[in-house]
Amino acid sequence: MSESLKESPRTSRFFEQIADRQRTLNTRLCVGLDPDLSRIPDACKASDRPIFEFNKAIIDATHDLASCFKPQIAHYASETAEDQLQETIDYIQGKEVPVLLDAKRGDVGSTAEMYARELFERYGADAVTVNPYLGEDALKPYLDYADRGVFILCRTSNPGGSDLQNLMLESGLTLYEHVAKTARDKWNDNNNVGLVVGATRPEELRKIRNICGKMTFLLPGVGAQGADVKEMMGAGQGGGMLISSSRAILYASSGEDFAEAARRVAQETCNEISRYSN
Amino acid sequence: MSESLKESPRTSRFFEQIADRQRTLNTRLCVGLDPDLSRIPDACKASDRPIFEFNKAIIDATHDLASCFKPQIAHYASETAEDQLQETIDYIQGKEVPVLLDAKRGDVGSTAEMYARELFERYGADAVTVNPYLGEDALKPYLDYADRGVFILCRTSNPGGSDLQNLMLESGLTLYEHVAKTARDKWNDNNNVGLVVGATRPEELRKIRNICGKMTFLLPGVGAQGADVKEMMGAGQGGGMLISSSRAILYASSGEDFAEAARRVAQETCNEISRYSN
Repeated sequence: MSESLKESPRTSRFFEQIADRQRTLNTRLCVGLDPDLSRIPDACKASDRPIFEFNKAIIDATHDLASCFKPQIAHYASETAEDQLQETIDYIQGKEVPVLLDAKRGDVGSTAEMYARELFERYGADAVTVNPYLGEDALKPYLDYADRGVFILCRTSNPGGSDLQNLMLESGLTLYEHVAKTARDKWNDNNNVGLVVGATRPEELRKIRNICGKMTFLLPGVGAQGADVKEMMGAGQGGGMLISSSRAILYASSGEDFAEAARRVAQETCNEISRYSN
Repeated sequence: MSESLKESPRTSRFFEQIADRQRTLNTRLCVGLDPDLSRIPDACKASDRPIFEFNKAIIDATHDLASCFKPQIAHYASETAEDQLQETIDYIQGKEVPVLLDAKRGDVGSTAEMYARELFERYGADAVTVNPYLGEDALKPYLDYADRGVFILCRTSNPGGSDLQNLMLESGLTLYEHVAKTARDKWNDNNNVGLVVGATRPEELRKIRNICGKMTFLLPGVGAQGADVKEMMGAGQGGGMLISSSRAILYASSGEDFAEAARRVAQETCNEISRYSN
């Protein structure tokens, strides 16, 4: 990416929406919509669209606390519930809240074009997650949607995240640092790139922040995965942060009060994030 | 993986089927089913299930030349055609031919369980492709299906494949060699692992063969991507090979003779593979 582009005021519609919501609603929270039929309250299960009914209640209860919602596509595909994913996305966008569709696709260029059509055109996602293992031509079809957001996996929050991502390269960088640097220098011509960085790894988050400046990071790991919000906020400061929590909010209660309980946990998470924001 | 497991006669049902077909039909060809509505002949477009009608004609014309069929899921998802993907898989399996569902999924453990359910239970795939960037816990849910095949991306055939995969590690191995070694030593406890290795890279294929012994490789790159069959067969010898061709077979003719043309190209590809087999 050239200096002139780096300095460009141009920003994707997705990142503008996120920035607006952060300003007006004071929230950096991203609510993950990972519906699991075995954990959805009985009240929703009675419906012929249980996943959508559950999501709708969660969205109604938390949308003014969310920068965006993040449906994870496997939770719908495993239940043959593409229609309920579409309904969920339409419902969120009807409230003028952006949708980050978490799909972590990665395939060769010609196939990546098909995946980009699936995510951006079929479902109308405002942003997506993608996997960098196949390199630049596998990312380009997503990056070419200049008005959307593209979050590239950098350092993931799971235990196996270190298996490849923390390998030390001959260059003196780890693989995840190399991905961060390449995202900054080569993949961000359209100013629409973000990175996925596990909130559970504050030291690594700090290194990636130092490499990527103001770039927005999607930070999973708060809530069920146990990341420390104070440490995360300290390490991630200096640029955009979308802090993702899914299960801790969705399953705060298994009773009829699940939506109110979800709002309470979402509000507590927002408060904790605000406490350590500067 | 321990030595005792390495020597175990236990093989996944998928790899047994492939070996049987190779023995009885003398074919290592894997026919990729990447239907593209803009290239499907008019005769199929008249149907309300154009993708399935196209696939059915291709399957009827080539099934006795195919070790397995490999539908690439993005080509169905981008067209809201999950139902036609399911019909295609059922139709292939009705002919007792195994299905390798090319999806290249990669996500943290709890989500990988959902993807594994999508691919193995919803669609009933006999084998899948997966992405190693998120490490072991992200692969385990697929590997736990001991009767299926799991092809891990190692060195992909696309131009950007070298961006990360060819990075030199401090250990003296490239990233793709490290993935090959880890697949051999740590991820193959159930004897159900294969690797995806681009046929367009014979030198790298040879290195991976030297690391992985008899392990089966899925080799895309023959046909439209222009890999040299003689060089590939020389470099890949010593272990299992599934040689994948999609577009060169599917779109051999755009006329009414598309199925016969597909068979002709499939037969030519099989013949060329046989010529250089030993």
